[in-house]
Amino acid sequence: MIVPAGFNLWGVHCGIKKKSLDLGVICCEDKSRAAGVFTKNANPAYSVILSKKNINHPVKAVLVNSGNANCFSHRDGLKDTTRIIAKLAGYLKVKKENILIASTGIIGRKLPKEKIIEKLPLLLENATQQSQGLKKFSRSILTTDTFEKISYAKVSFGKKEVNILGIAKGAGMICPDMATMLAFVMTDADVGSASLRKIIKEAADESFNSITIDGCMSTNDSVFLLSSRKVKLNKQETNSFSGAVKRVCLDLAKMIVRDGEGATKFVEIDVKGAASEKEAKMSGFFIANSALFKCALYGQNPNWGRIIGALGHGGIKVKDNVSIKFTSLKKRDIKITIDLKRGKFKHKVYTCDLTSQYVKINAEYS
Amino acid sequence: MIVPAGFNLWGVHCGIKKKSLDLGVICCEDKSRAAGVFTKNANPAYSVILSKKNINHPVKAVLVNSGNANCFSHRDGLKDTTRIIAKLAGYLKVKKENILIASTGIIGRKLPKEKIIEKLPLLLENATQQSQGLKKFSRSILTTDTFEKISYAKVSFGKKEVNILGIAKGAGMICPDMATMLAFVMTDADVGSASLRKIIKEAADESFNSITIDGCMSTNDSVFLLSSRKVKLNKQETNSFSGAVKRVCLDLAKMIVRDGEGATKFVEIDVKGAASEKEAKMSGFFIANSALFKCALYGQNPNWGRIIGALGHGGIKVKDNVSIKFTSLKKRDIKITIDLKRGKFKHKVYTCDLTSQYVKINAEYS
Repeated sequence: MIVPAGFNLWGVHCGIKKKSLDLGVICCEDKSRAAGVFTKNANPAYSVILSKKNINHPVKAVLVNSGNANCFSHRDGLKDTTRIIAKLAGYLKVKKENILIASTGIIGRKLPKEKIIEKLPLLLENATQQSQGLKKFSRSILTTDTFEKISYAKVSFGKKEVNILGIAKGAGMICPDMATMLAFVMTDADVGSASLRKIIKEAADESFNSITIDGCMSTNDSVFLLSSRKVKLNKQETNSFSGAVKRVCLDLAKMIVRDGEGATKFVEIDVKGAASEKEAKMSGFFIANSALFKCALYGQNPNWGRIIGALGHGGIKVKDNVSIKFTSLKKRDIKITIDLKRGKFKHKVYTCDLTSQYVKINAEYS
Repeated sequence: MIVPAGFNLWGVHCGIKKKSLDLGVICCEDKSRAAGVFTKNANPAYSVILSKKNINHPVKAVLVNSGNANCFSHRDGLKDTTRIIAKLAGYLKVKKENILIASTGIIGRKLPKEKIIEKLPLLLENATQQSQGLKKFSRSILTTDTFEKISYAKVSFGKKEVNILGIAKGAGMICPDMATMLAFVMTDADVGSASLRKIIKEAADESFNSITIDGCMSTNDSVFLLSSRKVKLNKQETNSFSGAVKRVCLDLAKMIVRDGEGATKFVEIDVKGAASEKEAKMSGFFIANSALFKCALYGQNPNWGRIIGALGHGGIKVKDNVSIKFTSLKKRDIKITIDLKRGKFKHKVYTCDLTSQYVKINAEYS
C-alpha cells in the first residue's frame, strides 16, 4: 500500500472536534487533474458548491474537514469557505480555482474558519508521501466511522505500472447518490481529462451510488479522482486502469456498508431478470431502504413478504414465478438473490440491517 | 358512541392467530352503499383486488381478518378469497359482488380458508348493533396495535341527525397511501354514491394519506366508507357531513400515529409557504420519513440540519430565510413548523419517532 507519486498527505487537529484529527490535506504536484461526483441534494454544502465549480481546473490541493458539514450555517458561509480556499491557495502560490474542498459533520453550524486557517501552514509543512501521511489523512476525515477505509491497487503494463490509492469515510446517512460519504482516489496514471471523468462516473455508479445505509441523502457527498499524470496510458491500458479504479471504489463502498452505523449484517442484494436497468436498480434500492425489511434482517428473519411489499411500494409488480433466495441469515455476510424473470437487466445493491444501535447512535449524535 | 342504524358488527377467533380475535364482520342492511380508498402498492393483497372490484356494488357485508395479509401466498390465492366471499354471500342470500373483504398481517402465508368459512355462521349469528359488537369487531382487526381505535361524530340538522362511527387499525408499515392500515367508517347518512366517493377520497388525503410511521407502503391498506342510507341529506347538509367524516378520519389517523410501533413521540409537521401543493406535501413526507431525523426526535435533539438534508434529498431547495420552529422536544406531543416562504401552499403530516423499540418489534415479528 503506497501513496502514488505526486501526492502528499497529512492530517491535524484544528479544534472543530474536541480531540481527534479533524483537518486533512492532499497536496498534488503541478498539472495534476481531478474529476468528481457530487451529491444531488438540493441544499448542498458550501464545500460542494465550490468544489463543483473548481473541479475542471488543474488541482493543487484538496482540503477536508470533519465534524462540521459546512452547510446551511449562515449567510456568509460561501464567502467564509472561499476565504479558507484563498488562504490555502496563497500558501501554495496558485489560484483559488486550483483548490478543492470537502466537509463532513453536522449541518447548520458555522465552520470555525480562523481555527482552520491557523493550521494550514502546519498541514502543508508536514504533508508527506509516506505511510504516516496516509494514516493521518485517513483518520482526519472520519466522523462516526469505527475504522479507516483504505484500498489500493497496482496495474502493470509490461514495464509500466500505475498505482491507485483510495481513502473513504462513511458510516451514516449513506444512500443512492452517496449521502455523507467522502472518497478520495489518487493515481499516478495519466488518461486525459474526459476519460478521468468517465471513469469516476462509472465507478461511482457501481459502488458509492449502489450502497444505502439508511436511505438518507447527505448534503456533502463527494468523490474525487485525482491524477498526478506521471504515467501516460494508451486506450487499452486505460480500460484496464478503469477496471482497477472500479474495484478500488467497490472495495471502499463495501467497507462503508460494513461500517454502517450500528450494522450487524453486510447484505448484498442481487437483482436479476429485470425488464430495464432502471427497474433493476430501483428494485434493489426499494428493498434495501425498507425499514421493515432491514429490521427483519437484524432479527435473522427471512421475511420475504417484506420484499414483495417493498417492491410493490416502488411500483414494481411481481409475478408468481419470481424467485427469492437467501443465504443463511445467521452469518454476518448475507446474499439475497431476486430473479424477477422478465428481462435481462441486473443490478447489485449493498446495504446493512437496521438495529437498535443505529437508533441509539443517531438519537445521541449532535 | 353508538353504532349507526343499519350496521351490525361482530368478531371471533377463527385460528389464524393463536388466541386473540382474528375475524370480524360488518353486516349492512339492504341497499347500503360503499366507497373506498386502497393502497397503490403494485403487489396488492387478494383482498384488495376483490374489494376494489366490488366497491361500487351495493354492499351487504365487510369481512376482515387479521394475522394474515392474504397476499402473494400461492397461485390460488384469488380463487380461495373468492370462495370465502361466495360462502358469506350464500349465507346472506346476496351475490358475491355485495361482499367486501380486508386483511392485515404477514405477507406470503396461505390464508386458512376452511377455518374462516367454518366460523362464518357464528359471526353472522352474533353480529349486533350493540356496543359489544363494536368492541368485538374493533379487537378482531388488530395486529401489533396496543389499543383499539374508535372515533365517533354526530351531526344534527334541525330534527335530523346523522351518526358517523370510524374504526381503524394501524401500528407499523404506515406511509403515504396508507401502508397496513385498515379503516371502516359507517354512517346512516345518505348522500348519493358520487358524493360518498368524493368525501372519502378527500378525507383520506388529509388523514390516512398524511401519516407515516416508517415510510413502508403496505400491500393491504383499505379505507371503507359505508352508508346505510337511513337519513337523506341535501347539498348543504352533505357539506357539514363531509366535514364530520374528515374529523373522524383525522382522529383515527392520529390514533394510528400515536400507536406507531415503538413510538414515544407524536409529531405534527406543519409545512407552510410552499410554492405548490405537491411541494408542501413532499416536504412534509421527506422530513417525516428521514430515519436520521426520526432518531433525533427520539433523542429529543432539535437537529434541524437533518430537516435541511431531508428537504434537499427531496429536491427541495431551501432559501436562507426559511423558518423552522420546534415546540419542546421533552413533551410527548411535538409540533414542528416549517415556513418555506415562497408561496401560499401548506400541508400537515403526522408521524412519530424511530426508536430502539421499533427495531425490536420488527426484528422479532413473524
